[in-house]
Amino acid sequence: MSAHDRRLLAWAYLSKVVLGSCPPLAQLISAVGPEDAARAVRERDLSSFLDRRTSARAHLDTAARDLDLVEALGGRLVTPDDEEWPRWRLLAFDGLGAGRDDAGPLALWVLGQRRIDDLTARAIGIVGTRAATGYGEHVTAELAGDLAVEGWTIVSGAAFGIDGAAHRAALGVGGLTVAVLACGVDRAYPAGHGRLLQQIAGTGAVISEYPPGTTPARYRFLARNRLVAGLSDGVVVVEAGWRSGARNTASWARRLGRPVLAVPGPVTSAASTGCHRMIREGEARLVASAKDVVEEAGPMGVDGEQDGVSLARDLDALSGESLQVYDALPGSGSRGTRELSVESGVPIARVRALLPVLELDGFVGSDETGWFRR
Amino acid sequence: MSAHDRRLLAWAYLSKVVLGSCPPLAQLISAVGPEDAARAVRERDLSSFLDRRTSARAHLDTAARDLDLVEALGGRLVTPDDEEWPRWRLLAFDGLGAGRDDAGPLALWVLGQRRIDDLTARAIGIVGTRAATGYGEHVTAELAGDLAVEGWTIVSGAAFGIDGAAHRAALGVGGLTVAVLACGVDRAYPAGHGRLLQQIAGTGAVISEYPPGTTPARYRFLARNRLVAGLSDGVVVVEAGWRSGARNTASWARRLGRPVLAVPGPVTSAASTGCHRMIREGEARLVASAKDVVEEAGPMGVDGEQDGVSLARDLDALSGESLQVYDALPGSGSRGTRELSVESGVPIARVRALLPVLELDGFVGSDETGWFRR
Repeated sequence: MSAHDRRLLAWAYLSKVVLGSCPPLAQLISAVGPEDAARAVRERDLSSFLDRRTSARAHLDTAARDLDLVEALGGRLVTPDDEEWPRWRLLAFDGLGAGRDDAGPLALWVLGQRRIDDLTARAIGIVGTRAATGYGEHVTAELAGDLAVEGWTIVSGAAFGIDGAAHRAALGVGGLTVAVLACGVDRAYPAGHGRLLQQIAGTGAVISEYPPGTTPARYRFLARNRLVAGLSDGVVVVEAGWRSGARNTASWARRLGRPVLAVPGPVTSAASTGCHRMIREGEARLVASAKDVVEEAGPMGVDGEQDGVSLARDLDALSGESLQVYDALPGSGSRGTRELSVESGVPIARVRALLPVLELDGFVGSDETGWFRR
Repeated sequence: MSAHDRRLLAWAYLSKVVLGSCPPLAQLISAVGPEDAARAVRERDLSSFLDRRTSARAHLDTAARDLDLVEALGGRLVTPDDEEWPRWRLLAFDGLGAGRDDAGPLALWVLGQRRIDDLTARAIGIVGTRAATGYGEHVTAELAGDLAVEGWTIVSGAAFGIDGAAHRAALGVGGLTVAVLACGVDRAYPAGHGRLLQQIAGTGAVISEYPPGTTPARYRFLARNRLVAGLSDGVVVVEAGWRSGARNTASWARRLGRPVLAVPGPVTSAASTGCHRMIREGEARLVASAKDVVEEAGPMGVDGEQDGVSLARDLDALSGESLQVYDALPGSGSRGTRELSVESGVPIARVRALLPVLELDGFVGSDETGWFRR
């Protein structure tokens, strides 16, 4: 045991020290590598901000033990060093503000055999209230089952109610599902879902940005919701009260530019109140079937390119710097990143971050001559 | 009997001859009066179009008998001559195209004691499938009951299913309700609703643009739907299949600039398919309660004037000539109709027709100096 490579040990140490995302640390790592970053943290040779953020746990070094533990459970620590790091998915976080909680994960602790990038290549988040009704569980099972059969990975939070029904339905049809936890992957939370989590890890993945041993906490559930949205092509809320975690996941999806979808239900059911209000306020689009979901969240190539209306609508969805960059592209022909930066007035580093997102979303393409409009 | 005034007899004759709306005839009547128009029709002294439209029944003169019959049932023929003619409501038809089926009614046969303009001053259309589920009937009863208690008249088509539940709920709370028929008001259609129609006429009104004796026909149901929409501030669809009469009523409401609202239901229920698709396609706004309905269809003064967002949204809803006329109004101060016509390029007759609609919708006001923006 503990024959871990030093780079990975450094990642594990850093993950434990910050317990979550930390953009300045990510920047430091990307500048000097994880080992030097870990040394700087350990020696508290840091900017005052980073020192404040890391000093409380800088003395803890459970890296080898954490890696051993996860390995013993059949898991691993996935970092931006790895090919399977879902970098395309997580690029959308670069489009957000610079707030501490707006960033992608530093690294991901994973139980399961499949590569994370493959698992999340076509993924739908399905979330909802823990206090699901029979109707909600039934609809979730139909929806998740139909999507999983069509090859979509079902991403959710492993909570009771809608989350659990979504995971179970995917497993039930032999499909793929990913559970994102607000605690270490060594913990079964909720405890009643221990067996379910084992099953999920058996064919899909159980994921957390927190190292083994981390206990669930309210703010970690919110951070977890951001990963459910971040790892998905779109988020479906099946049943939700007005103030529910599912709405938080939905608002993450919206910020990340992913479609937010909601399933209606009887207006006599309190469990559908949140979905109805989201639809009514224009925060979510109504979906009634897996077909509707795929229409909204599926690859643009399927519908969008033949459909001027939906393409136009999606262009309307671009805003801020993304729109500036898009508008800087010529009507025909291509343009390089530097030219696009000059033309759009957007800093070149941001242009470099935004273009792959625009490409994933089907707005732009690239070849050896540069970037062009689709 | 038959001591009817000659002008009313002429109206009754013309209503029987055209059996529905007929813009050229309405124009002729407004130019020469009903008696001369009736003489021209009887003597077939008409444009070829009008002759074609009236020749088949020009020889029928059941006017006195029809008036007697309706009077015996406690009813009357209401025409644009009458103070109670719901002219403000029906003005919206002037904003439509010139197609034969786009016009307001020539006259209305009415059973019931109340004035039609009063009855429809605050009115919500509630429509839906005849094959309603228990859920649909329950929600209709709640919605119609709550609205009726708040003083809204419930307008519907007296069909089985949602229509019947809407009328009954209004009656049940001692509220007002109007049934618009696709046949003469002397006919109980559907037959199973004979007693219900009597009750409706007892406190509200049973209305038809067709003279007594007219039988229901498919195109008359479509024309009837246009009146349900035309007499309402907004239309709520409770349950509807995709190809249902309720959707037709909704599309009339949309054309008339009235809010189209739809109640969601279980996605597992075929009866809610039409509602879900209308919401999904942006054809209707989701409503889950009477409060939601009033928010959408209520007078702008209640919400709109304090709420910049909703006012802006409603201004966005203006289009075509209405917008031209609105834009021709000065930012402050007022302007006369002739000036507005010159300024907007909209013919003065249309300006005269559109301004009262804009006023009703809360966009403009008028005083002795002319018209001004609100």
